[in-house]
Amino acid sequence: MRKNFGAKPLLYPQPVLIIGTYNADGTPNAMNAAWGGISEEKEITICIDSAHKTAENLLQRGAFTVSMATADYVAACDYVGITSGNQVPDKVARAGFHTTHSPLVDAPLIDELPMVLECRVISYDTDTCRLVGEIVNVSADERVLDAEGKIDPAKLRPITYDAVHHHYLVLGEKVGNAFSDGKQLK
Amino acid sequence: MRKNFGAKPLLYPQPVLIIGTYNADGTPNAMNAAWGGISEEKEITICIDSAHKTAENLLQRGAFTVSMATADYVAACDYVGITSGNQVPDKVARAGFHTTHSPLVDAPLIDELPMVLECRVISYDTDTCRLVGEIVNVSADERVLDAEGKIDPAKLRPITYDAVHHHYLVLGEKVGNAFSDGKQLK
Repeated sequence: MRKNFGAKPLLYPQPVLIIGTYNADGTPNAMNAAWGGISEEKEITICIDSAHKTAENLLQRGAFTVSMATADYVAACDYVGITSGNQVPDKVARAGFHTTHSPLVDAPLIDELPMVLECRVISYDTDTCRLVGEIVNVSADERVLDAEGKIDPAKLRPITYDAVHHHYLVLGEKVGNAFSDGKQLK
Repeated sequence: MRKNFGAKPLLYPQPVLIIGTYNADGTPNAMNAAWGGISEEKEITICIDSAHKTAENLLQRGAFTVSMATADYVAACDYVGITSGNQVPDKVARAGFHTTHSPLVDAPLIDELPMVLECRVISYDTDTCRLVGEIVNVSADERVLDAEGKIDPAKLRPITYDAVHHHYLVLGEKVGNAFSDGKQLK
């Protein structure tokens, strides 16, 4: 028996994307977004309300970064989501984050968040809130790499947004192999 | 020290979305997609290559469902991702899935997958692969509800796609409260 919940933005998993931009004066800004994901081979799409300082910033510089929020920095990642960059222009520093200018795009890397997508703005439509970005590069700190030099989610510990309970859930263990486990049914 | 991986579609988490549609003759079809997510309050956006049977089907019926792939059905969810509906029109049955017609949209619910979004097609652009759907309803089987009648991710056990290792990872435990944990930094 199924229970109906109506028309709601519920999905598992939802990401916790920390979007980094520069304010006009060069101070870094960051916000927290759950409505988005990969939309093509080298493209990410995220819904950003035009009221956010982030929207203004990414249009001015044509660039942004997307860091994965992690279990090690839950409070700081939540803080940048509940504090407005319009009212607290130094919110990134107040969160305890430090930043480095991306070598590839005009946007900040957050030193504490080990995995990031460096993106150029392809388009942004304030009516639909749709920001489309070109993924120029993915980079990750060596401390979250596995023995083969690949990003290890067990070290990264990315968090996800549970929209039903407003919880953050960490990504869990491996339960299968993609493009492989289904072969037994062929 | 950060390591660069280049322009790749890497993000944690990525969903495993099982998209249900009806073929022209009424048999159910399903495919597996990782590039998508919530894009607005009542909207989901997913990249669907136009070569998929799903693309043809959802345009003909104007509807589709999006079930969360679960750890309990990893092999079946992977199977519908590696088998083409153009070549195996009864792939849903071969996966061991059973279906029920959605009471709200002209698309199938997969009985084995407890949580589903029932969607109407808003737009589909074959050039960008962008399918935008209106979320008409979210429903979930009672067996995955918690004591308050809400969807319980620990019972649902949704899986996610690890694009770095091509693994499926189950969603893990709670590590924080959204809109709350950041207050300590205010």
